Amino acid sequence: MTGKPKLIEPRTLKGFRDYPPALMIPREEVLQTARSVYRAHGFAPMDTPALEYAEILTGKGGEESDRLIYRFRDQGDRDVALRFDLTVPFARFAALHIPKLGTPFKRYAMGPVWRGENTSHGRYREFWQCDFDTIGTTANAADIEVALVIHELLVTLGLERFEIRINNRLILNGLLEEAGLVHQSVAVLRALDKLPKVGMEAVLEEMAGHGIPPQTARLVLEWASAKGETDEILDRLARAFPTNQTLNEGIRRLRELFLVVNTCGLPMERFRLDLAIARGLDYYTGTIYETFLLDLVGIGSICSGGRYDNLAGVFTQQKLPGVGASLGVDRLLTALEELDQVGKKETPAQILVTQFDSGSLGHYYRIASLLRKDGFSVEVFPEARKIGQQLQYAEKKGHRLAVIAGPEELSVGGWKLKNLFKRTECQFGEGELAQAAKRELDS
Amino acid sequence: MTGKPKLIEPRTLKGFRDYPPALMIPREEVLQTARSVYRAHGFAPMDTPALEYAEILTGKGGEESDRLIYRFRDQGDRDVALRFDLTVPFARFAALHIPKLGTPFKRYAMGPVWRGENTSHGRYREFWQCDFDTIGTTANAADIEVALVIHELLVTLGLERFEIRINNRLILNGLLEEAGLVHQSVAVLRALDKLPKVGMEAVLEEMAGHGIPPQTARLVLEWASAKGETDEILDRLARAFPTNQTLNEGIRRLRELFLVVNTCGLPMERFRLDLAIARGLDYYTGTIYETFLLDLVGIGSICSGGRYDNLAGVFTQQKLPGVGASLGVDRLLTALEELDQVGKKETPAQILVTQFDSGSLGHYYRIASLLRKDGFSVEVFPEARKIGQQLQYAEKKGHRLAVIAGPEELSVGGWKLKNLFKRTECQFGEGELAQAAKRELDS
Repeated sequence: MTGKPKLIEPRTLKGFRDYPPALMIPREEVLQTARSVYRAHGFAPMDTPALEYAEILTGKGGEESDRLIYRFRDQGDRDVALRFDLTVPFARFAALHIPKLGTPFKRYAMGPVWRGENTSHGRYREFWQCDFDTIGTTANAADIEVALVIHELLVTLGLERFEIRINNRLILNGLLEEAGLVHQSVAVLRALDKLPKVGMEAVLEEMAGHGIPPQTARLVLEWASAKGETDEILDRLARAFPTNQTLNEGIRRLRELFLVVNTCGLPMERFRLDLAIARGLDYYTGTIYETFLLDLVGIGSICSGGRYDNLAGVFTQQKLPGVGASLGVDRLLTALEELDQVGKKETPAQILVTQFDSGSLGHYYRIASLLRKDGFSVEVFPEARKIGQQLQYAEKKGHRLAVIAGPEELSVGGWKLKNLFKRTECQFGEGELAQAAKRELDS
Repeated sequence: MTGKPKLIEPRTLKGFRDYPPALMIPREEVLQTARSVYRAHGFAPMDTPALEYAEILTGKGGEESDRLIYRFRDQGDRDVALRFDLTVPFARFAALHIPKLGTPFKRYAMGPVWRGENTSHGRYREFWQCDFDTIGTTANAADIEVALVIHELLVTLGLERFEIRINNRLILNGLLEEAGLVHQSVAVLRALDKLPKVGMEAVLEEMAGHGIPPQTARLVLEWASAKGETDEILDRLARAFPTNQTLNEGIRRLRELFLVVNTCGLPMERFRLDLAIARGLDYYTGTIYETFLLDLVGIGSICSGGRYDNLAGVFTQQKLPGVGASLGVDRLLTALEELDQVGKKETPAQILVTQFDSGSLGHYYRIASLLRKDGFSVEVFPEARKIGQQLQYAEKKGHRLAVIAGPEELSVGGWKLKNLFKRTECQFGEGELAQAAKRELDS
């Protein structure tokens, strides 16, 4: 370079954001928790490329998602696009690999997806999805497990006050059969989805707009908004429609789910039958799940999913039924922040080893490595700045303890351990330091 | 949809690949190990978007990387591009955020990058990078830590026979000063980089092509290829050029590094001085690292990096020196596979709980959940297929144990535990099952 080159403005694209450590640490914790819970239940990791042939992604999404897709011509003049969700690439993957991998196939996938959406509602154009599914079986066991996994996931994330709302599309379909509305099911279910937001009358009005008479619509809506104990509602339904096979298969599957939850000794109040949830799209055909935080119901469902009949019909003749759910990582992080459950840390390190003079660096690195062997995350300050400056750094970043050793301490093999929250300190021999640190961190 | 829609062929783009579980499980293990080692040393996670303004990415990369970049116009007619490495977006990030975050700033970043490269050498157009850096300090402590982190990383990955080759650009620069070749440093270092591949004579010839006389070039080359003990080589160098400040600062920093490695009690043979490594590019200005597996030297360095003077000069006046390294995830995975250190598993689950009849599902899920509390990863087979079929599934996927309970076992509260490798089985009460599983997995 000659002369003074002009600087390039260091900016990000509209709708995109950087993740500095304070945002990234909680995000990694959530992803790590999801990963460990999914793995503990035998879901295997898989991934697909960010870029696909555009026709793969546009095949199923409809016009709305087409407009949102980042689509372009690559160097080889191929018509390519960035994935806008993890489901469509998974369908393509399933068509390609499941013949060899076999079924049941249990997978999880986590990764960024891209949508050129309107950013006015705090939406981002790049965000993470975090899905798990069991493919290739219609067994209710797989449906039941989805509810158990969602429960375990939220508990492991430290949440207690939540409820998983569960329904089965077969019950809604049975009611539509009884009401003679099968051919208008999309209109009915779309309207039904709005019930909690707009209320019964507005929903009836919307249905009337589709030519559905109120007395017919009421049959579906009144059952959908039934309140009471799970068993009692299901008993009433079964008595009301004893011969409707669709509806009774839905009841059977739901009963089995709640029975297993009970046998496993899980808190029943976190699993709630909600005949009103329909999850708009045509896609789902069986059990449906939504998950709400009781202290932040307004934020919407943070983990949703359901059973579908045919994952990859666009790509293969092989019928691949499945069931799964998706954790809304960004929504969950927003919620955790509002619930004040996110620590304000800029470092994963718990302990800062301060430095008095670079001649003793070996000792500082040695003690750090000893502490790491006991499972601590330990940072060594790289410069022999004034000790006050080093402690200031630790307080800004969020270290909880500092290890301090000047020439005096080093000469007697001692290490000062300072608790940066309580502002107390004590001196320990090398052999006692880890245990002392553990005591301070637990206290 | 009406009629029978035409199927879309489920294919991936040239140069892109799916990661089914058998590929993804080892990849996640490597990333997870890197993450835990980086965190244990106080490096904090951060991320930047996949998409940036094209000018951000093309600013520094030169013509070659420009041709490789996936670049297009987005919906808002912005000139955008996919990141081709993690360093350039990090430089942009640093210019934008470091004024507020402060220094030293220790970070790691892991994620996919995209390059429209020629795929003929088994190269992929989407691959992962996994970098760590300390920014905002010139202290040698940060350089030393990079070597310690690389060592810890490889040991934690289960590797033993490797060496980290270390050099310092200041020594090469000092030699160039002595030889009067400072203004031809790029040509000399590029040629030097090829020394191990093509030999001394070919390198001299290349340099002669740039007008560098062989007797001058020899001064640099002979020192660069010096063999012997680290201390002995550095002593000889110091005696030969006692007044060259650049060179002696390089020697001082290297001596300090090897001293700390020794104080920490690490195996010295894994840290080797190699005055020949120059790492082609202009970018590096101080310590340089390359890491070779002794049983697979030919595969190239699996973890490389170095110190640089000015990370973000394209974006800011603030001078940001730093030091870091990058783990070559794909190269490492290839190596682990060749060394037969990758398990052939398609599931993260260790134990499969088989199913006799769906009426007992609650008990199967309950026992699975008990085993998970003891840290096992446990899958419940979703269908009550023939037991032989379920065990076949477990053997294909790579579960190590199966838990079996038919009506007889359930009636006495017993669980059969089958070791799928040894093909032995034994019956246990519920309270003994976890311990028995641990014994079998350890054996």
